[in-house]
Amino acid sequence: MPDIGKLLWPKSIAVVGASSDVQGLRGRILETILSHPFAGKIYPVNRGANEVQGLKAYSSVDVLPEPADLAILIIPAQYIASELERCGRRRIKAAVILSSGFAEEGEAGARMQNDIAVIARRYDMAVSGPNSEGFANIAAALCPTFSPAMDKNAGPIEPARALGTGQVSVISQSGGLGFAVFDRARPRNLKFRHIVTTGNEAALQASDFIDYMLDEGMTDIFLLLLEDVKSPETFKCVAEKALRAGKPIIVGKIGRSEAGSRAVASHTAALAGSNAAYRAIFDHYGVIEAQELDDMIDLAVGFLACGDSMPAGKRIGICTASGGAGVWMADACAAAGLEVPVLDDATRKSIDEYIPSYGTSQNPVDCTAQGVHKMGYATFAHIVAQSPLIDAIAVVVTARRSAFLEHDLPKLKSLKKDSRKPIFMWTYTLPAERNVEILNEVGYPLFTGSFGCARTMRAMVDYRAFRERTLNKPRARSIPHPARAKVHALL
Amino acid sequence: MPDIGKLLWPKSIAVVGASSDVQGLRGRILETILSHPFAGKIYPVNRGANEVQGLKAYSSVDVLPEPADLAILIIPAQYIASELERCGRRRIKAAVILSSGFAEEGEAGARMQNDIAVIARRYDMAVSGPNSEGFANIAAALCPTFSPAMDKNAGPIEPARALGTGQVSVISQSGGLGFAVFDRARPRNLKFRHIVTTGNEAALQASDFIDYMLDEGMTDIFLLLLEDVKSPETFKCVAEKALRAGKPIIVGKIGRSEAGSRAVASHTAALAGSNAAYRAIFDHYGVIEAQELDDMIDLAVGFLACGDSMPAGKRIGICTASGGAGVWMADACAAAGLEVPVLDDATRKSIDEYIPSYGTSQNPVDCTAQGVHKMGYATFAHIVAQSPLIDAIAVVVTARRSAFLEHDLPKLKSLKKDSRKPIFMWTYTLPAERNVEILNEVGYPLFTGSFGCARTMRAMVDYRAFRERTLNKPRARSIPHPARAKVHALL
Repeated sequence: MPDIGKLLWPKSIAVVGASSDVQGLRGRILETILSHPFAGKIYPVNRGANEVQGLKAYSSVDVLPEPADLAILIIPAQYIASELERCGRRRIKAAVILSSGFAEEGEAGARMQNDIAVIARRYDMAVSGPNSEGFANIAAALCPTFSPAMDKNAGPIEPARALGTGQVSVISQSGGLGFAVFDRARPRNLKFRHIVTTGNEAALQASDFIDYMLDEGMTDIFLLLLEDVKSPETFKCVAEKALRAGKPIIVGKIGRSEAGSRAVASHTAALAGSNAAYRAIFDHYGVIEAQELDDMIDLAVGFLACGDSMPAGKRIGICTASGGAGVWMADACAAAGLEVPVLDDATRKSIDEYIPSYGTSQNPVDCTAQGVHKMGYATFAHIVAQSPLIDAIAVVVTARRSAFLEHDLPKLKSLKKDSRKPIFMWTYTLPAERNVEILNEVGYPLFTGSFGCARTMRAMVDYRAFRERTLNKPRARSIPHPARAKVHALL
Repeated sequence: MPDIGKLLWPKSIAVVGASSDVQGLRGRILETILSHPFAGKIYPVNRGANEVQGLKAYSSVDVLPEPADLAILIIPAQYIASELERCGRRRIKAAVILSSGFAEEGEAGARMQNDIAVIARRYDMAVSGPNSEGFANIAAALCPTFSPAMDKNAGPIEPARALGTGQVSVISQSGGLGFAVFDRARPRNLKFRHIVTTGNEAALQASDFIDYMLDEGMTDIFLLLLEDVKSPETFKCVAEKALRAGKPIIVGKIGRSEAGSRAVASHTAALAGSNAAYRAIFDHYGVIEAQELDDMIDLAVGFLACGDSMPAGKRIGICTASGGAGVWMADACAAAGLEVPVLDDATRKSIDEYIPSYGTSQNPVDCTAQGVHKMGYATFAHIVAQSPLIDAIAVVVTARRSAFLEHDLPKLKSLKKDSRKPIFMWTYTLPAERNVEILNEVGYPLFTGSFGCARTMRAMVDYRAFRERTLNKPRARSIPHPARAKVHALL
């Protein structure tokens, strides 16, 4: 097995095809790498220039002062095989191929793609791509990609105040979508570790990267964007390993429709396969399927913030200052298959002490603006969390003004520390950036959509229950017979 | 019928209960009004102060120098009836009651609420509330509300560059949600006209405000947040009037679940009623139901940008620079019941001239990053729009960097002018603010969710078809028998 560590954590990189023209992709990759404080060595390789973007350039990987750990290849498709061969001979142990024009283009391209696989095996190289958009190792500040999301102008690659202490990694066959997930998650203060785009997967597959990262032990949640699964057996082993480790895999499977699967074939030459087969595998390994990009991010926010304190059941207590928003949250919970039971008398009595008579303690608990203004959100969430009828709490807030939440902060901090039941927050107004930071820093997941919040709570209930059932069962090497037969017939 | 014009367009306002304590709601209302350049007169009424927030204060509406057009009442519930009576005698023709503690609180409150209705009728006053959060008339810069969304710190109340030329009004029983819609729509550059929150609707109902605004003729799209419909007959007449006028009503009906409807009863004392009955009415009048807040805004963006150019059918042409994002858009279209047909040969031939061999013209049209970099998005959208197989175009963009779209702008402008088919845009990365402005100013609707974009296209296909069928039918005063019987049985 090739060493993915050389690919993701290189000490030196050759950028083959690097150019000084930063309008083109070949120039942008190097520009992007240089705009982050990566500590390793960078060797531009360009046949016609002695210098590229201020760095000494080399005419070939053969004349580098050392065999680089990693080669980034962005040269026309027809030259890739010979260049990769040259890298292999030069004892470069990893390569990322960004060039397009392989299996997605037809038979000749498929043959060239096959050559990549053969060469990778011959030299035991860790090869990602072709038709990839590169990757980003956030901890190493290494971003060999032309994705505009990693532009220095797009903002910092790490949040100033991260949500919780965990980390998220993205593995995506589509380059555009992989970096889009990262980009869209920026306002949510998630700490990312790796973003890897795998393109056509001539050699390394998405599953291989997940496997490496599970061993690395620093990724707590995986966001996976799939057009297809090249080796179902590998995927299943890795999915089971992740489940046992308690590291949720959240998947966006694209190409579910007829037009979508037609597009997948021409995009990364993948066979999108049957939805039923994929769903069977996902269900069997507790892989969580998301509908769209923001759903994936909502799920990551929920899992990251709650860590091991996932809801033990489906019974949600709702606290709100806006009656209407509380109603909407209750509807969202019901739509997600959660329950919003009327609270027990003891809990209601405690709540009634703090709310005016036009509020209600039934559930949703309408604390009213006046009640919240006086007592803060934390007081009510704390009381509701004591109820034996409740597994998790959804607090409906307006995070528009920061002064109020800052005032509530000490109580919100103790609540987070003391509560064994997870607490979720939905803001029905747009949140002020400062409020997102405050809440995230304490460790609260903040959602801007009530349905996204409810779907996330439901997914966590299911994941926890599924995992507990699975861990109590003996370890299975593969999925049981009926499902396996179905999957094999369909894929 | 009382004159809603006096309520929404007063030349003078009495703020009864106004206070100098801007930490409390009674102070915040006046502070919010004063923070916007409303041109009319403002009279604080406060029994114990000669001056409130720098304005001369009056001990009662009786001693105002003139009968104000509108009274804003924020005093304890038990004093509301006598104060409203006093306003009536003083020939004040409109009142907004923000106080809570009426029918939502029980029987005694219900009796007080009934008194409001009686007094409003006696003096033919336009009375909104109680338990309302006030309103905002954006054109008049009048914001009698304590909603933090209308705070001067929350940002300007009109976009610097609005999407299209139309206007949107919000009518909501829930104050929190009504202003939340406005607030959340800010980054979308929608031009709002009125935001009215109606609370318990002792006298004026949501339908009455829609009726007034239809006559006013300046609102193109209505966003309606309902817990219940107090007078189904009025609602039906108004919905039909809106349909005939081609002014879509987009409704968020809350209290659909059991817990939600329980909460509705204690929130505005409404009976949420049967979902089936509401859906029957909505369907019968082409009222468009949305799932959550952001769906309502997506729909408003789509309808506003397209005006009368709604898609004539379900066949969508997708242009994309990211293969993966194009696949996702195709999946989203399929999920919304739209079609993504393979394009005709002539159209494909024109496209093939501009894209590299690893792209595809089938549909989704994968123009590739290289193709778009060379030709811009507009070129491809223009070609696809010519296809006889296509009713609308979805362009998948990355609106992260503005330089590129600025460069494409002249072509995007001609495309918008020349194309008779509507063009929708989805950005899979977070859009730069400047890009949203550029695209909105030209008149393109920009979505951040592929499913929201697809659902909006589908809703517009349905609305256009439904309206055309309806306009060809003779005018009906009420809904036909079977549906009517069902509705009456259920409400």
